Formats: sequence, C-alpha cells, structure tokens
Amino acid sequence: MFGTVVDWRSSVIREGKQITESTDQTVDWAAFADAWRKEYRPSLERVRQGEIPWQNLDELHRESLEELLDRFDVEGLSESEIVHLNRAWHRLDPWPDAIPGLHRLKPHYVIAPLSNGHVRLLTNMAKRAGIPWDLILSAELSGHYKPDEETYLTAVDLLDLEVDNVMMVAAHERDLDASRELGLQTAYVHRPLEWGPEKADSTEKPEKNAYDIVADDFIELAECLDAPPIIR
Amino acid sequence: MFGTVVDWRSSVIREGKQITESTDQTVDWAAFADAWRKEYRPSLERVRQGEIPWQNLDELHRESLEELLDRFDVEGLSESEIVHLNRAWHRLDPWPDAIPGLHRLKPHYVIAPLSNGHVRLLTNMAKRAGIPWDLILSAELSGHYKPDEETYLTAVDLLDLEVDNVMMVAAHERDLDASRELGLQTAYVHRPLEWGPEKADSTEKPEKNAYDIVADDFIELAECLDAPPIIR
Repeated sequence: MFGTVVDWRSSVIREGKQITESTDQTVDWAAFADAWRKEYRPSLERVRQGEIPWQNLDELHRESLEELLDRFDVEGLSESEIVHLNRAWHRLDPWPDAIPGLHRLKPHYVIAPLSNGHVRLLTNMAKRAGIPWDLILSAELSGHYKPDEETYLTAVDLLDLEVDNVMMVAAHERDLDASRELGLQTAYVHRPLEWGPEKADSTEKPEKNAYDIVADDFIELAECLDAPPIIR
Repeated sequence: MFGTVVDWRSSVIREGKQITESTDQTVDWAAFADAWRKEYRPSLERVRQGEIPWQNLDELHRESLEELLDRFDVEGLSESEIVHLNRAWHRLDPWPDAIPGLHRLKPHYVIAPLSNGHVRLLTNMAKRAGIPWDLILSAELSGHYKPDEETYLTAVDLLDLEVDNVMMVAAHERDLDASRELGLQTAYVHRPLEWGPEKADSTEKPEKNAYDIVADDFIELAECLDAPPIIR
C-alpha cells in the first residue's frame, strides 16, 4: 500500500500543511514526511524482534510523531490536532494509475491489500479514496509484520489458495523477495516518485526477469495479467 | 449472511436442480436444502464444544452433504460435481432489497459481513453477487463460531471501534441477543421467506422495541439509519 498503491509522501505533506497553514509556523513538511516514514521500519523491527508487544501503525506512528514534532519544533498542536495528523496515514491518495488498474484487475482476480497497516487504517483509506478491494488483508490478521512469513502465509490461508495462485504486488523488493521465498508469484511496480521528484533517479528498477512481472504502473500490471478494460 | 443478506434456500435448490437436471433422478431439492441447513447448527456446535477441531464451512458442509446424498438417494455424482455442489454456499443470491439497501448505507457507514462463513466463501459470494462490502469479517478471523463472544469482539477489535459504535444486523434473534449482551447495537431484519413460502407464517417478527431497529428489509434499515439514496 504505502508507496505501491498510495503516494504517502505528497499526502502527508498536504496533511501537515493543513495543520500549520493557519499558524505563523514554517515547517519543512517534505522533510517531516520523509523523516516520519524513515521511522517506520525501525518501529516495525522493534515489534518483529520482540522488543515491544504488538502495536498497530497508529500506535507506532504516534510514538515517532511525538518525537518528530519536537525535532521539527512544531508547537502548539492540540491533542485532537495531533490525533488527526497521526491519522494522515489513513488519508493517503492513490497514485493516478492505481484505481484504474485495480478496476481492470477486479473482474478477473480477487484483489486485496496486504499491508503492515492495520485493518481499520486500510478500510478507511480504501473508503475515502474509492479503492475497489474485494477484502482487506493486513499484517494485523497474523499479529506479525512483513517480512515475517506469517503475514504472507496467513493471507494465503484466508484466501484458501495455494501460494503459487497468489501474487504479491509491491514497489519494494524486500517485500517481493520474502513473498517469492514462500512460493508466491511476484510483481514489481516501479514508483520512482515515492521519495519525491528529487530522489526519482535513485530508485533503480530491477531487471525484467527479477520477478514474474516488472511493470511501470498498475495499468501495465493489468495488461501483463490479461485484464482488459471493462466497457460498461 | 445466510438468511439475512442472501436467500440460501432458493439458491441451494437451484444449484441442486442444475446437478440432476441432465439425469433421470428426481430429488426433492427443497427438502434437501432444508435438511442441509438444519445440519449447520449441530456442526457448528461440535466445533464450539471442542468435540472437533476448527473446520471451515466448506469442510462442515461437505460432511453433512455426504450423509444427505446418501439419505436422499442421490447417485452417480462425480467428485468434482460434489465439490461444486458443496460450494453452492459460495453462490447464494441476495434478497432483492439487500444490495440496494447496502448501497444506501455504504456512503454513511463501514459495512461488512460477520458470518460463520469463512473469508473465502464470503469473498466469493460478494464478488459473484456484487455485494459492496468495505471489508470481509468472519468467524474465521477469531477461530470461534457465533454466538461465541470471541467472534463479535474480534470483529469490533479489527474495526478499532467501541462495541456501542458497531451495529449487528441479522434475521436471527440468537445472533442479535449475543451481540446485545456484549454491548453492540442491534438491528433485526425480518425474513419470513427464509425457510420457504410455506413456512412464512411461522417466522414471528419481534416487538418493535426488542432491538434498536426492527425492519422489514434493508431499505427500511437504511431509512432508520438516515441513509438516503445517493443520486449519482
């Protein structure tokens, strides 16, 4: 989801700006968004390594948010503003190709997210943005964060399918490598803008044969999967 | 789901007839459907009481199906026909008001099934019939069948809501009584045709104040919940 289906960076920047636009504070929300996202993996690792008990992304995001508000000298936010900002991760906008591509896939395949985001976050995001999932799958259903194998295997088990009848789609090779290791099919979708236009050149696209599919976006993914547009 | 959102009886009768229409067998598929459904609760009870380990509805239905094929003298079905008939429960048609009512509710509420059916069954059913759920909730996610409290509480937990912000909708008082006991809101939807037209008079509708809402169908439910039709 984060980076693959939705553009977390622009959306978090937008949400940050909304919070401070009526104040006289100048905050580098782009740097803030990047820093927040960079706390994500270490937070998950603490859960994965058993240092802290299971916490959902709202809880993990909140912990890093408080530290970042301090680091970026963002002052005077009320508790309800902090809660609202923390839930910016429920209000992320899809990349422009994601929903059209998913609409092409949906008549032919069961489509679901498999994110470290919890069920409520993914549900809110889909409902706000109109993402046409058939069901919501999440790390939360296994109590394990990706790339723990339990996350993927619980999802496959709930789909009541064999691993090789399930395809993991992601913009992140670590996620795909873990999936492939377990026998899932894999599709890489290239998102050079995930970390902003200035970093676009530093995101390298893997070789065509690195995964079952290597696509530039969800439209190309749908084409590779023989999912033509449905004319209604 | 079974009886509340979908008309299991007519659908199972239809599926049964399709299986035997090209043979010279005469099977009373209405009686067969009723008998199959009557095996449902005792099957669940065996899981609930710990007599047998967790099995999903495909597995429980299959066990009773084999016994019923014998009892009704249905002969000569191939293994793939038996598998197909067993999955008739994935191909149930909604009552005529269910999808229009859910479309009215969807812009205002998060809507999900909470069924003893497993995730795959509910996903297949929704996809085939076009039921516009936001997510699929199921007894399977808790490993407990309704009316065990774990089924309801796991669903509420995944929605990340308080019990009194969640409403259970059902045509079955047992399901609603268990929900109300835990603090959920409750809506009864009357389905006098669940067991066929001949039994319509024997399904008594509870008093208006027995639950938060007592409605004749999903349209009335949407009206009670201030969910007007959306004109697009």
